[in-house]
This record gives sequence, C-alpha cells and structure tokens, in this order.
Amino acid sequence: MGAMGQLRVFSSIVVLDLLPLNQNISQNFAPVNPMKSQTIIGLQNIFSSRLDTLGHLLDVAESHFGDDVQSLLQSRIAPDMLPFGTQIAFTCNQPRNFALWCLEQSENNLNPDVASLAEARGHLSSTQELLTTINVTDARLLEIKRIDFGQGLYVELPGFSYVDDFLMPNFYFHMTTAYDIMRMAGLPIGKRDFMMHFVPLIKHQSDS
Amino acid sequence: MGAMGQLRVFSSIVVLDLLPLNQNISQNFAPVNPMKSQTIIGLQNIFSSRLDTLGHLLDVAESHFGDDVQSLLQSRIAPDMLPFGTQIAFTCNQPRNFALWCLEQSENNLNPDVASLAEARGHLSSTQELLTTINVTDARLLEIKRIDFGQGLYVELPGFSYVDDFLMPNFYFHMTTAYDIMRMAGLPIGKRDFMMHFVPLIKHQSDS
Repeated sequence: MGAMGQLRVFSSIVVLDLLPLNQNISQNFAPVNPMKSQTIIGLQNIFSSRLDTLGHLLDVAESHFGDDVQSLLQSRIAPDMLPFGTQIAFTCNQPRNFALWCLEQSENNLNPDVASLAEARGHLSSTQELLTTINVTDARLLEIKRIDFGQGLYVELPGFSYVDDFLMPNFYFHMTTAYDIMRMAGLPIGKRDFMMHFVPLIKHQSDS
Repeated sequence: MGAMGQLRVFSSIVVLDLLPLNQNISQNFAPVNPMKSQTIIGLQNIFSSRLDTLGHLLDVAESHFGDDVQSLLQSRIAPDMLPFGTQIAFTCNQPRNFALWCLEQSENNLNPDVASLAEARGHLSSTQELLTTINVTDARLLEIKRIDFGQGLYVELPGFSYVDDFLMPNFYFHMTTAYDIMRMAGLPIGKRDFMMHFVPLIKHQSDS
C-alpha cells in the first residue's frame, strides 16, 4: 500500500502544483514531501466509503425486513461461523484498529455481540469518526506494527503490509460475509449494492 | 495534450527521479527501497499469494468431499447468486485483467462455467502464470484504465484506483464468497485457511 499511496500523492501534486509550472519538476517537488498524508488519506477513503456501503446495506435490510431485522443479526452462513451482527463489528474492527495504531493507541475491538441495528449503526459511525481523527504522515506506514494473538504468538510487520496482508483481507472478508448472509436471508440486493463506492464513477458515453 | 497525458509524463519522471529523495524516511528499511518498483511487485504478491490460498482450499475440498466435490462447484449462497465454480473464475478475472492491462491487452474474462476441479485449478495456474509476465514500472498505475460495462456505460480512472476501488473489492468479494460457499457446504476450514498468506509471518515469543 505504501508505494501505491505514494503514487496517489504524486498524482495530486502533479495536478495541483506541477502542471501549471511544467518546468524543473524536481525543484517544484522538493518543498512538498510526497509521502505526506495521501496514502493515509487514501486508506481513510477506502475504509470510509465501504463503511458507507455497509450503512446503505443496513438501510435496505431495515426497510425490507422491518421488525424481522433482529433475526438477521443472528443469521450465519454455517453453524460455527459468526453471525451477521458480529461480522459488522469485525468489519469495523479493521479500520478501528488501523486508526488506533495511527494514534499510537492499543488495539481495542468492538463488542462482538451486536444486539440491534442501532448498535450496528453506532459501530459504523464511531468507526467513521475515529477514522477522521487520524493525523499522521504516510511515513507511519513504514513503521513496524506488532499484532499479538495470545499464547505467545505475534506478528511484526511494516505498516503497509499490516494494511495489505492483514487489515484489507479481514475487512473485505467480514464485509463480504455480511453481504452473503443478507443474500442468504433473501435481501433483494446485488453486486451494485456491494460496490456503492464505485457507482458515482460510472459515466455514459452520451455525457459530455 | 490533455491534463491526463501530462500527468502520465510527469508521473513517470516523478517516480524515477524523486523517489530517492524520500530515503531519509525509509532508513529503517535501508537495504530495500520500499518506494522502488514495490507497487507492481506488491500487487503481484498479493494476487499470487491469495490464489495460492484458493488452491489450498480446493485441495481441502477435494480431500474432504472426494467425488462429491462436483456438487460443490454448483453450490451457491442464494438461488440468484453465482455458483462456486464461477466465484473461482471471477476471483481469477481480477488479477487476470490486471495483468492484461499491464501488458496493454484487452480485458478477457474466463469462462464462467467451471465444470470440474481440474478446470478450476487450470484457471488458478494460468492466472498465476499471466501474473509473472507483468513487466512494467509502477508508473503504469498512474495511467488511465477504461472499463466498459456495455450499454454505453464506462469508467475511466487511474490505475491505482482501478486496483483499490475495482479489482481488490471484486477479488476479495469472490474469494470470500467461494470460502463462504465451502463453509456452507460443511468443509472443515476456518479463518486461518483464508489467511494462509499470513501464517508464515506468525512467530512465537520463544523464537529468537
């Protein structure tokens, strides 16, 4: 993610600062640290927009199931898998712990028992809020993150690998499993609802 | 030349010339320059390691279900969702089309009907092979990718957004849904099997 986010930085700097000047690119670039904040901003955007999607899915579930939405919270793909409510909490835990790590605070997972839709929405909004408090440079992604799994087991890896190899697979895993549980429960949603963040980018060739 | 064309030119200059300026930040990583060429390589690694995981999951499915593995290929989460075999093909389509884009070739999706485990494995290995043929610099990720959806609908976005906002959500969506179908079918697997790429990173504190 590190290098990728940097490309993102470069592109905005190019657009904002370099295009009008168009000369001596290195010099114009020098005062701006291209590692600054864009990667982190990119991650904030990825997490935040997907949490918006989850909020959208909860809205559809509520309007479709009405009072039966409570039973959705306890639905699961397999008897020994985690129920829908917990999938929402675990989805939130990834951006949550990412934000806490950026803030140099300890990991802190949400209560896995999500008893109501209001509680699920509360998790989404508290996570969104926490994401907005991140205020570090992209250099944070080169620092080492340690994850403890108990029983003496741990992983130490650079921040960008923490994001790519731990947070993102977990984030999409729990978000997709929440979606799959909703589909299994008969909610009339489709791939477009999962890809809500992408929909605003779609154009029609007749647009000028 | 439009703004985007200029962006393209500048971006490769930026990537090639300015990256060494960041070295103070990456001092902890001194032997490896994390900015240099890591992005494409990083994506190859992400895709490739997760495809290895899918191969592992197919092995477990085959040894568990034996001849019944055929029916797994047709299993789905909901009647109007795609079956397991298609989820495998669609998972592969993401790194496949990424590689084709890097190679400046047109999109080309796999046959969604996957009739046997051998065919599923063939898709994994042909995708792995295609990934190894990518031979572009990270500047490719600043170039514009166009995705056509038919009926005049399309998206144009920079390569890094193509990866973050289209390929990765789709990749993990189909991989997770394949996993969820296996769980629903009773395969004795767990989160660890989904996170196989991560397992080698786990250490024990008694290790020196």
